[in-house]
Amino acid sequence: MQVLHMNKGNGDTSYAKNSTVQSKIISVGKPIMKEAVLEMLCNNVIESMGIADLGCSSGPNSLSVISEIMDTVEAANRLLGRRMVSEFRVFLNDLYSNDFNNIFMSLPAFYDRLKEEKGLECESCFILGAPGSFYGRLFPTNSLHFVHSSSSLHWLSQVPAGLESNDLKRLNKGKLYISKSSPQSVVDAYLLQFRNDFSLFIKSRSRELVAGGRMVLSFMGRSSTDPTTENSCYQWELLAQAIMSLAREGRIEEEKLDSFNAPYYAPRTEEIKDEIEKEGSFTIDRLEAFEIDWDGGAVTDIHTPHGKLSVGRRVAKAIRAVVESMLESHFRIELDVMDDLFIRYGGIVGTHLSKSRTKYINLVMALTKKW
Amino acid sequence: MQVLHMNKGNGDTSYAKNSTVQSKIISVGKPIMKEAVLEMLCNNVIESMGIADLGCSSGPNSLSVISEIMDTVEAANRLLGRRMVSEFRVFLNDLYSNDFNNIFMSLPAFYDRLKEEKGLECESCFILGAPGSFYGRLFPTNSLHFVHSSSSLHWLSQVPAGLESNDLKRLNKGKLYISKSSPQSVVDAYLLQFRNDFSLFIKSRSRELVAGGRMVLSFMGRSSTDPTTENSCYQWELLAQAIMSLAREGRIEEEKLDSFNAPYYAPRTEEIKDEIEKEGSFTIDRLEAFEIDWDGGAVTDIHTPHGKLSVGRRVAKAIRAVVESMLESHFRIELDVMDDLFIRYGGIVGTHLSKSRTKYINLVMALTKKW
Repeated sequence: MQVLHMNKGNGDTSYAKNSTVQSKIISVGKPIMKEAVLEMLCNNVIESMGIADLGCSSGPNSLSVISEIMDTVEAANRLLGRRMVSEFRVFLNDLYSNDFNNIFMSLPAFYDRLKEEKGLECESCFILGAPGSFYGRLFPTNSLHFVHSSSSLHWLSQVPAGLESNDLKRLNKGKLYISKSSPQSVVDAYLLQFRNDFSLFIKSRSRELVAGGRMVLSFMGRSSTDPTTENSCYQWELLAQAIMSLAREGRIEEEKLDSFNAPYYAPRTEEIKDEIEKEGSFTIDRLEAFEIDWDGGAVTDIHTPHGKLSVGRRVAKAIRAVVESMLESHFRIELDVMDDLFIRYGGIVGTHLSKSRTKYINLVMALTKKW
Repeated sequence: MQVLHMNKGNGDTSYAKNSTVQSKIISVGKPIMKEAVLEMLCNNVIESMGIADLGCSSGPNSLSVISEIMDTVEAANRLLGRRMVSEFRVFLNDLYSNDFNNIFMSLPAFYDRLKEEKGLECESCFILGAPGSFYGRLFPTNSLHFVHSSSSLHWLSQVPAGLESNDLKRLNKGKLYISKSSPQSVVDAYLLQFRNDFSLFIKSRSRELVAGGRMVLSFMGRSSTDPTTENSCYQWELLAQAIMSLAREGRIEEEKLDSFNAPYYAPRTEEIKDEIEKEGSFTIDRLEAFEIDWDGGAVTDIHTPHGKLSVGRRVAKAIRAVVESMLESHFRIELDVMDDLFIRYGGIVGTHLSKSRTKYINLVMALTKKW
């Protein structure tokens, strides 16, 4: 929790410049988000609407979600012929180490656009940063009407408890995440950590949302019961291969690979439903799965050498922007080794995708806080 | 407004490492702040207390003010024998370009201390970042109970209108701020800009504070009607001398010095009172002036060569941490010229202070929003 953050700034390896996949995921979930906002507004006039984006990261995606939500409210105003919301309180949340400076610097232009496009004055929209972990309370009781979170809840609050201790961490030798070679105890530890984290998330939001408030969550998951299918975990499998190839050359300590377990989990829908139902304060309006291309679905012919290379590179840059902070903190490698790692990873990914079009499974769900 | 920010990070020239004067100013105002908080709590039970620190900057001072306010609430709880506040909503405000990342990184340790020292759980204290200019609305109507601002309101929203245009900016030739050589039109332009800005500040806060809410403001001012006395402006006079000495060597363009006018104003108490009374929604409970040493009052014998040097250096570093972003944006000088500028400035300041103990005049005022 102290380590994970998307790559900062606006440079070549920054998250801001390499978040097409996450942008694609947001746009896939957009109809569900719009539906949830509209349904909520049909039933309630909201004086001051509290909106939170949890895991907002830093870059073009951070404010695009907010913009979409506000567009939807505006469309509702037009449809229903009256102003349903007179004030927006917008909270951008991410971990303490997120690059909030970068988001905040883009706010003046964002406010200007709100004014030009939607005629919103600065007295009616307040955008704030809410740093902290969403696995716990972030906001006052009954202060929110709409919670959005995209591409964030697959990150666990920590490496699964149990896999951290010295005795157990070698259980997942040569791997970064659940793999075909992982013993059942590793799979169990991941599931348990997810259950604990996700239930704490649901419980916290339940306190913060008003009755009738909505939540649209979108994150990586899987469709099969087996957590070791390619669609569930293969991006980690291939990253482990790239690390192993550097370990063989003595440029990364193999022991460090053995002891690394990513704080990530791609749950299946039943695992999510279980926790929501156990907590009891939300109804599930929708829960859908979408296949997402590893490179966000850019049009490239992977069956040419150039296509293979460029798809591989794009995927490698997208993954690097997300996991570099974690790898850096664990492996303590120099920048040139990191560069080399992701060049190799890009090659391995390109070769894999030219043979098998493995996809991510992205789950999108809409929940309503019960009255 | 797009340019001004305290020097970022934690390095040698950072504001975080060079904000002793501002810390001194906060501690001088502390009794007035404590009195205001206590008085407010005696008259009101507050379910969820909204606290804003406007111009929080980045460094040890940012959270120390918040800590003091919370200590005072705790003391009130003990004195009055019951919990007067059950939840804190804390808003840290500064301009968009402020180093919020730096503050946010220190929050986990701050929350830990709140828990240890005050037994406050994470569900009862929510700290948020509120980026934007305080010369305008920042928060929803009636959402705040206590507003604090220290060492910020002497910064104007812009270079005084009129002094920006090409015809007029040369009016203040060779100077950075009001000086003995400034024509009356320059003095008038500064006062007018202050009046406009400060009245907008008061009007905005008046909307945001609940009736009975308090505001403690502390910023640079002056005690004489004459804005050109040493205590009002001499830090700028000496900085202009240092810039001029580099201009004479061709290392800074003299034309750029002529066209620079600092967006700063040290008002006298009557000018402040005028605007507060004109706006009409606040009563002035206190308005006091304090003399503050340029180096924050460290014990150094200025009458030794070493003492002179070290006092000068300290003052130069403190001023640099505050004005470097502005100078950089206007003069477009390289780092080595900037370094040299502040070495010279330190020398000039040391020599000046060894002859005349010029001080800053810091004004502290406590206001109550009328019922």
